[in-house]
Formats: sequence, C-alpha cells, structure tokens
Amino acid sequence: MVETKIRLFVDHPLAEGQTVPLDRDQSHYLFGVMRQGEGAMIALFNGRDGEFAAEVTRAHKKAGELTCRVKTRDLQMPPDLWLLFAPIKKARTDFIVEKAAEMGAAKICPVQTEFTNSERIRQDRLQAHALEAAEQCGGTYVPEVTGLEKLDRVLADWDAERQIMFCDEALVGAAQTLSAVKGGKWAILIGPEGGFSEAERKRLHALDFAHAVSLGPRILRADTAAVAALTLWQEHLGDWS
Amino acid sequence: MVETKIRLFVDHPLAEGQTVPLDRDQSHYLFGVMRQGEGAMIALFNGRDGEFAAEVTRAHKKAGELTCRVKTRDLQMPPDLWLLFAPIKKARTDFIVEKAAEMGAAKICPVQTEFTNSERIRQDRLQAHALEAAEQCGGTYVPEVTGLEKLDRVLADWDAERQIMFCDEALVGAAQTLSAVKGGKWAILIGPEGGFSEAERKRLHALDFAHAVSLGPRILRADTAAVAALTLWQEHLGDWS
Repeated sequence: MVETKIRLFVDHPLAEGQTVPLDRDQSHYLFGVMRQGEGAMIALFNGRDGEFAAEVTRAHKKAGELTCRVKTRDLQMPPDLWLLFAPIKKARTDFIVEKAAEMGAAKICPVQTEFTNSERIRQDRLQAHALEAAEQCGGTYVPEVTGLEKLDRVLADWDAERQIMFCDEALVGAAQTLSAVKGGKWAILIGPEGGFSEAERKRLHALDFAHAVSLGPRILRADTAAVAALTLWQEHLGDWS
Repeated sequence: MVETKIRLFVDHPLAEGQTVPLDRDQSHYLFGVMRQGEGAMIALFNGRDGEFAAEVTRAHKKAGELTCRVKTRDLQMPPDLWLLFAPIKKARTDFIVEKAAEMGAAKICPVQTEFTNSERIRQDRLQAHALEAAEQCGGTYVPEVTGLEKLDRVLADWDAERQIMFCDEALVGAAQTLSAVKGGKWAILIGPEGGFSEAERKRLHALDFAHAVSLGPRILRADTAAVAALTLWQEHLGDWS
C-alpha cells in the first residue's frame, strides 16, 4: 500500500500510467500551500474510476502534473439514497451538504417548501462543499447537488418506486418504518426550521411512498435532523451494517 | 394550553404564582429585541422545575419581571448519557455542544487526548451554547458542560458501571454492541480529527466497560461522528424508542 496523506478530486480520467494536469488552484494548493515536491505521492479520485496513488511529475506552482502509479481503491458507490432539504441559513446549509456527503448520500437536492425563506442557493458553492467533504472523508464518489426546486413540483414528478422518509412529529420510530418498508431506492426529506405547512404535511401523509418518522422527544434543528435521519437510514438499510 | 412562542431559561425557582426578575440581557432581549409588552406570555424553564407559561408583569428594558401562571410541562430528564469529546476548531466545538444538548445528552465533557491541540476551552461560552440549544429544542433540562480534563485522568477515575461507546475503525456495528450490553449508565467518547493515539486505542480496547463501534465505511469528522453516535444510542437505549 502506498502512503498518501493528501487526497485530491480531479475532473480527469484516471488509470495506471495516466498523466493528470492540475489547474492553477490545485497547483497552488499542492506546491505552494502544502509544499509538495516532485516524487511526492498524492491520492487522486474523480468520482468515477476509483482512487489512485499518483506521483508528482511536475511541481509547477501554476500548472503542475501528476502521474497515476497504482490503483488504491475501486469506486465505491453510496447506497441509492437522496437527501432533500429546505435550505436554511448559509452556514447551516453548507453544513447539511458537507454532512450528507460524509454520511454517504448519493444525491443532495435543495427543495423550496412553503416556509423556506431562501429563494435561491449557490449551487456551485454547495457542490464545492460536497466535493471537499468527499476529499476529507475518503469517499471515492461525489454526490451531485441539484438546483433548488419547489417541493410541490418535486413531488408531482416523483418516481413512486423511491420511498421517502420524512421527519414529522409522528409517533412512529424510524426503525419500525425502515424495517417494514425495506430496501430499494429512498430519499430523506428534511423540512425547514418552521416545519412543513399544514398543506404539505397533509400531502406527504397521503402519499403511499412517503413515511413519517419521529426523531425523538426534542425538536431538532434541520441540520441535526439531517445527520440523525441519515444515520438511522444508513444503519438500517445502508452501508453501515 | 397557553400559546407561548418565546422560551427562556432563567436561573430562578419556578412555581405557579412565582414572580421572576429578569436580568439586563434578558430584559433587553425580550422587550427591546422581541418587543414583548405587559400581558405577553413567555415559556420559562430553569432545568429543575419543568416549564411554565409566564406573563410579563413588568416590561422594563433593563429590569423586567414575569409571573408564572401555569405549569406547562414537567421536568423531563434526558437518559443518563454523557458525551466525552476532544475539542476541535472553535465553530465545530460549539456545534458539538449544541448538538449534544439537542440530542439529549445529560452531561458534556471536553477531554484532552494525545492528538488534541486545544489546551483550554471557554467553559462558560460552551455552557451558554448548551443553554441556548435547550431553549431552542424545547428541552426542560440543560446539560452541564464540564471543564477540560485529560482523557488519561478521566479514565483513571472512571466509574466501571458506566459503559463507554467509542468510535474506532472497528468492525462491530453500534447496533450489535448496544443490544448486547444494554442499558444503565453510558458515555459516548469521540476522538479528535487525528483519531486516538495507539496507546489510547490499546488502553480503551483493554477496558471491560469500553466498547468500540463502527460508524460506517467513510471517515466522519468529529462533529458528524458525535451526532451519529448520539442518534444510534438514543434509538437503541435512549428516549427515542
């Protein structure tokens, strides 16, 4: 096993012997900030081809180059789980995206509910957060962050084969629901700080593929609820068991 | 049921008919920022006597007064679960304390491990975060934040009847461990970003009351791991089921 301490995402095909040019930011980071020189080994992944130990073959602060030497890990896809959430304050939205990537969500979908204040999100910034979280957590896959869509529309176009677990002041624990409904495609839906509107709640409860679960007796903030719900799902149906 | 939208922690005995003086900060918040007037109803809790709907009986911006009218909730103690964690960067440490309070930890104990950089913490600031989280999540109890102690010393003085769940690259899922060991007094121990040292890991594995569990195939940040571990414990042994 080759020792690599730094992990980088690159948007470039990876294979043994493949050379990979670095962009200005990455070159600056690797050779300026992290002071790596030629011969140093860096872990590379691109979200498609797994992870490679790559050698620095040109340590140029503006346009460096790496060469993949050996494949260190196969691509490991997360379970088919989406996280839908209503964007909240900036820091907490960033946090939800970071946590979703770490916790192994395959897709991250900001949705606008009736009580959501945000009219827009910075999709590129959120995507960058997901990518950074993947670099950090050792994942070989980067979840896609989709654009902001209205919950109404998302539900209207929903694939009925994908179950939805949503958090409500319901009395049913997640364990019961998850073991009753079992595997396949899933999404977790986290409402905004003010909760769902009465109309949204009614609509969700009426959907066959949507399941209300409880997250304990205290009121959780949206970001806490996201991590807790992802934990329960991963433990019962995902790749934690 | 009396409608109250604002919840305040006060360090004062509460009972029906009891008048409660507010300090300068609370008076400023309630009458200056939130523009409440005499007759408004506020939810009060003190971590001991439950929750009361209290009426504003003096709306003075520097020294207001409330009078408890009716008890709205009994004191609800969280399960006997402590969270021990190694302090990390400021924002993430604040976050861990907030989340621990929301998730229902009874006591929050910062510990210094070999790979912990922090030599000190602001205990008063962390306690204020726990309190704010309790106000927010509707809890009637505020977990105590203890001072920073060395993990070594904490383990040396440990009550062997309190089980410890620590997160390690172990192969055992939390569910198995928690259902095998069952209830009683527990603590969750979260290591720093760099993990436990080899010596700490050996020591923990050798303790009868310490149980290593896995939190999935990705490497979680300390703050994510704290929420995930609290979720698993609450679901299996705590007040979520």
